[in-house]
Amino acid sequence: MSTMRTHYCGLVTEELLGQSVSLCGWVHRRRDHGGVIFIDLRDREGLVQIVCHPDNADVFKASEAVRNEYCLRITGVVTNRLEGTVNSNLKSGKIEITATNVEVLNASVAVPFQLDDDNLSETTRLTHRVLDLRRPQMQNNLRLRYKVTMEVRKYLDALGFIDIETPMLTKSTPEGARDYLVPSRVNAGKFFALPQSPQLFKQLLMVANFDRYYQITKCFRDEDLRADRQPEFTQIDCETSFLTEQEIRDLFEDMIRVVFKNTLDIDLPNPFPVMDYYQAMGLYGSDKPDMRVKMEFTDLTEVMKDVDFKVFAGVANSVGGRVVGLRVPQGGNMPRSEIDAYTQFVGIYGAKGLAYIKVNEAAKGRDGLQSPIVKNLHDEALAKIIAQTGAQDGDLIFFGADKAKVVNDAIGALRVKIGHSDFGKKAGLFDDVWKPLWVIDFPMFEHDEESGRWNATHHPFTAPKDGHEDMLETDPGACISKAYDMVLNGWELGGGSIRIHREEVQSKVFRALKIDAEEAQLKFGFLLDALQYGAPPHGGLAFGLDRIVTMMTGSDSIRDVIAFPKTQRAQCLLTNAPSEVDEKQLKELHIRLRNAEPKVA
Amino acid sequence: MSTMRTHYCGLVTEELLGQSVSLCGWVHRRRDHGGVIFIDLRDREGLVQIVCHPDNADVFKASEAVRNEYCLRITGVVTNRLEGTVNSNLKSGKIEITATNVEVLNASVAVPFQLDDDNLSETTRLTHRVLDLRRPQMQNNLRLRYKVTMEVRKYLDALGFIDIETPMLTKSTPEGARDYLVPSRVNAGKFFALPQSPQLFKQLLMVANFDRYYQITKCFRDEDLRADRQPEFTQIDCETSFLTEQEIRDLFEDMIRVVFKNTLDIDLPNPFPVMDYYQAMGLYGSDKPDMRVKMEFTDLTEVMKDVDFKVFAGVANSVGGRVVGLRVPQGGNMPRSEIDAYTQFVGIYGAKGLAYIKVNEAAKGRDGLQSPIVKNLHDEALAKIIAQTGAQDGDLIFFGADKAKVVNDAIGALRVKIGHSDFGKKAGLFDDVWKPLWVIDFPMFEHDEESGRWNATHHPFTAPKDGHEDMLETDPGACISKAYDMVLNGWELGGGSIRIHREEVQSKVFRALKIDAEEAQLKFGFLLDALQYGAPPHGGLAFGLDRIVTMMTGSDSIRDVIAFPKTQRAQCLLTNAPSEVDEKQLKELHIRLRNAEPKVA
Repeated sequence: MSTMRTHYCGLVTEELLGQSVSLCGWVHRRRDHGGVIFIDLRDREGLVQIVCHPDNADVFKASEAVRNEYCLRITGVVTNRLEGTVNSNLKSGKIEITATNVEVLNASVAVPFQLDDDNLSETTRLTHRVLDLRRPQMQNNLRLRYKVTMEVRKYLDALGFIDIETPMLTKSTPEGARDYLVPSRVNAGKFFALPQSPQLFKQLLMVANFDRYYQITKCFRDEDLRADRQPEFTQIDCETSFLTEQEIRDLFEDMIRVVFKNTLDIDLPNPFPVMDYYQAMGLYGSDKPDMRVKMEFTDLTEVMKDVDFKVFAGVANSVGGRVVGLRVPQGGNMPRSEIDAYTQFVGIYGAKGLAYIKVNEAAKGRDGLQSPIVKNLHDEALAKIIAQTGAQDGDLIFFGADKAKVVNDAIGALRVKIGHSDFGKKAGLFDDVWKPLWVIDFPMFEHDEESGRWNATHHPFTAPKDGHEDMLETDPGACISKAYDMVLNGWELGGGSIRIHREEVQSKVFRALKIDAEEAQLKFGFLLDALQYGAPPHGGLAFGLDRIVTMMTGSDSIRDVIAFPKTQRAQCLLTNAPSEVDEKQLKELHIRLRNAEPKVA
Repeated sequence: MSTMRTHYCGLVTEELLGQSVSLCGWVHRRRDHGGVIFIDLRDREGLVQIVCHPDNADVFKASEAVRNEYCLRITGVVTNRLEGTVNSNLKSGKIEITATNVEVLNASVAVPFQLDDDNLSETTRLTHRVLDLRRPQMQNNLRLRYKVTMEVRKYLDALGFIDIETPMLTKSTPEGARDYLVPSRVNAGKFFALPQSPQLFKQLLMVANFDRYYQITKCFRDEDLRADRQPEFTQIDCETSFLTEQEIRDLFEDMIRVVFKNTLDIDLPNPFPVMDYYQAMGLYGSDKPDMRVKMEFTDLTEVMKDVDFKVFAGVANSVGGRVVGLRVPQGGNMPRSEIDAYTQFVGIYGAKGLAYIKVNEAAKGRDGLQSPIVKNLHDEALAKIIAQTGAQDGDLIFFGADKAKVVNDAIGALRVKIGHSDFGKKAGLFDDVWKPLWVIDFPMFEHDEESGRWNATHHPFTAPKDGHEDMLETDPGACISKAYDMVLNGWELGGGSIRIHREEVQSKVFRALKIDAEEAQLKFGFLLDALQYGAPPHGGLAFGLDRIVTMMTGSDSIRDVIAFPKTQRAQCLLTNAPSEVDEKQLKELHIRLRNAEPKVA
């Protein structure tokens, strides 16, 4: 394949027996065994065993001097391994290379850790990222990431989508997440923002007749970081004109199916199930339910309205209150300690307690049930609980009663936790397969208790369902949108919507969000303008590439599928970014540090 | 192809005669002709003619109401055009659509200019970019841009290159160009920089055993903008390990050949000519010579050393001076006014004048030459000038004499200007074809007169030629590097080098650049560290995508191949970025504006 090497180490097999090959790679391991030196040489395709015999003095001398992670060029003859030394874990495991020349391309100082050490701290790994990236797992992760993007590109290319780059230096519109700002040198006192997404630009491209757009691009959000977030992340961003919501969903559902099939040979269901938002919240307390968990909520708000138990009745009779039961099949034998742990767990989500009923013998009615709360529930309520949850003897029912959000969050998380627990797996409550679904028909707006205002559930450019335009200002809470999320195993893979393509509807939505005409013009004037020039019906979707690859590789963190990620304090441990800069640079940008400002009396 | 439409407008041909089709697009033109309304409907694939007959009352009424740039959905039957009305400029020119339904998907306000107006100011175009992008030329430019990137991806994919994303939020290393800075909120007083190129990250990826990397990615330089520059620009960035310089050049030369062939069906020469830096500077005064221009410099420094003409002799005898002749075949009849204009032109590059000789009859010696300077040149010098330039009767010879840089810049630019002039084209001095070449063997360092220091000609990570390592500190000016540029028609398409892969060589280069050990560790410690862990021999290249596509589309400006470019004042006229931001945002970022600082007495 080149002057320096004829083959990749990991791909040399018995087909090359007797041939001379030249290989380049790193010393993975070096052993002296009965006076013969063995080197496992590693390149991106894997390992091959090199044998350096003492009867070749030059080779032997050179091989004696090498250490782990030296970069070598080896020439040698492909030879059968001795019987009993075949390594069936390696593609090259039947052969070895009898070295005729060993050239040290570059030496290595002693490495700070062994590459096959699986117990490295993340700080160590990120500080020595270059060595960390040599590990086969990281090599595989980034290669899979690449394959995913190429499959996406091929799929979209065949359908006439074209990749168009949108600006990285753009306008700050402080909505939702915090912007990363870039001070302008030429325009004193002004700032660019790094894009949170190419949303508006892709809509402009639709208005500009590009018809089918995509881009795999970096987006930026200056948020407090969680395990699965990075300051910069990569979106597969797509938009099309003249397709219906159903057609858009079908197209991208198929794309994800093709990606999984062509990279990991995984068959995702066809079609994906579809569920509307209210159904998802009703049954799972989540708009991204993990469908692998085979438990559902039973809504008991009605049932609890007239019970003596104040905790339930009070909530059931209050506006925005919700009472649910979560039936845990075969949960009746759950030890008290485990129930206590779950009680503590739901507390994280704001639940003030976790009531339960053990169903010993349903046929016995009240006497067959075991729980501190049974005495406060009348017979009819108990019968309905059993009937509506479908509880069987030996089951356990957990209860959540609070504001709907608290119940959904707490019992939704509990459902997932039990499903993923050892108990859940043993009890058959967890189906270990890929379970995608679409969640659709989101509400247009969410009410913000604090400000008393309505916020856009997705973003303010999402179209309302046909016929809901008239309620935008009169009854925002009742408006359903044409938004859709693709969910896989409890994670949102991507989401999108049909967009508003009429200026008057867009202006109505801004008014519903209490963005007045002046502010709308200042921030989104270019969009409102564009919509007036015959904007086409359009919609699209954006997928989170980091998340998708994290799931596909089974990684613990999205940092394992990003070559040079930031820590949770938004730092790069390798380069020490961010760092201090020269006063001269700040001066040119017309800014100064706040802590460096002159004191005034 | 979807519920809304069955075909693209521009692709409906006589093959569909008699069939009913549904089309979506924009009203390009609408004419009332003999009581029948004709609409040219436009989508991304082109135009088709829609006919709305008065006998279909609904259709006619709807079509009467439409105006330019309305977005329509038309259903109709594909019909033969009447004889004499066939439009051979259109793919759909033999047919028209007899409308059976006209649906207005969205109306348009009156457009501020006609889309086929070719005389729009750039300000108008960038302010109304969405409409500007609807123009066929812009549609074609961005589609060609996409095709180029897909061809690049396919070519590199087949060779085992993988696309790996490198960070956008990275470390500021104020070398060369100015960084765009991004203040950190979490790390008060610290800043990220947007990457000027992924140079160091791609080298780290080589050390990390990724072997063959590419990325088509945004880079940022906060420089004063020229016509062909943008604050953010796109690089095709590539790097490989274990290949020789020749192998790398061959690989990427072939890539560019494939791209030109597969997108525009252009056959570039195979192989590209190769010229070393000193030869290019000697013959053309440029390291990116436009090889279409069929004129070369003749170096006359030696010849002029003993002439009476002080301007020439003084320069010829001074250190760093250069005297050249530029023979202009058939230039003898050039009117005085044109020569004066060229004299002014070279002044832009610092030349203090432009001496010339008209060769009327070379055989007559001094008497056959016409020029104010002839009297100050002795016979032998005149004979050598004629002989060495190869001047023929009727030719003109221009002279440059100054510091080498001034001569190279001025006479180099003059060479190109004459070559591209009407005269040059008529005189056969311009070969209107694609003329790529490689310029190689650049000097490692350039001497900076002002600071008295040596600067890296490419960048400090470029490897010296084998054997030149020892001169890095002792004789920097004599060191040649393994750098190479790909040049096409006077523009640098891309450039790269074999990189330094040994820590001790890298440290030597830093010392030659007067970067001391402490500073080197602070700025590039992570690179020096990485090089110590068995860094492989590696090298690569980066192409300027914007430039390549500008050339391929024959555009005047790179702004014509970027969807949403910035002006030369680094502004986006569409969104009004950069813009002022809230004080709250600045506070969170621990910065304040300089002009807003509290006054101190």
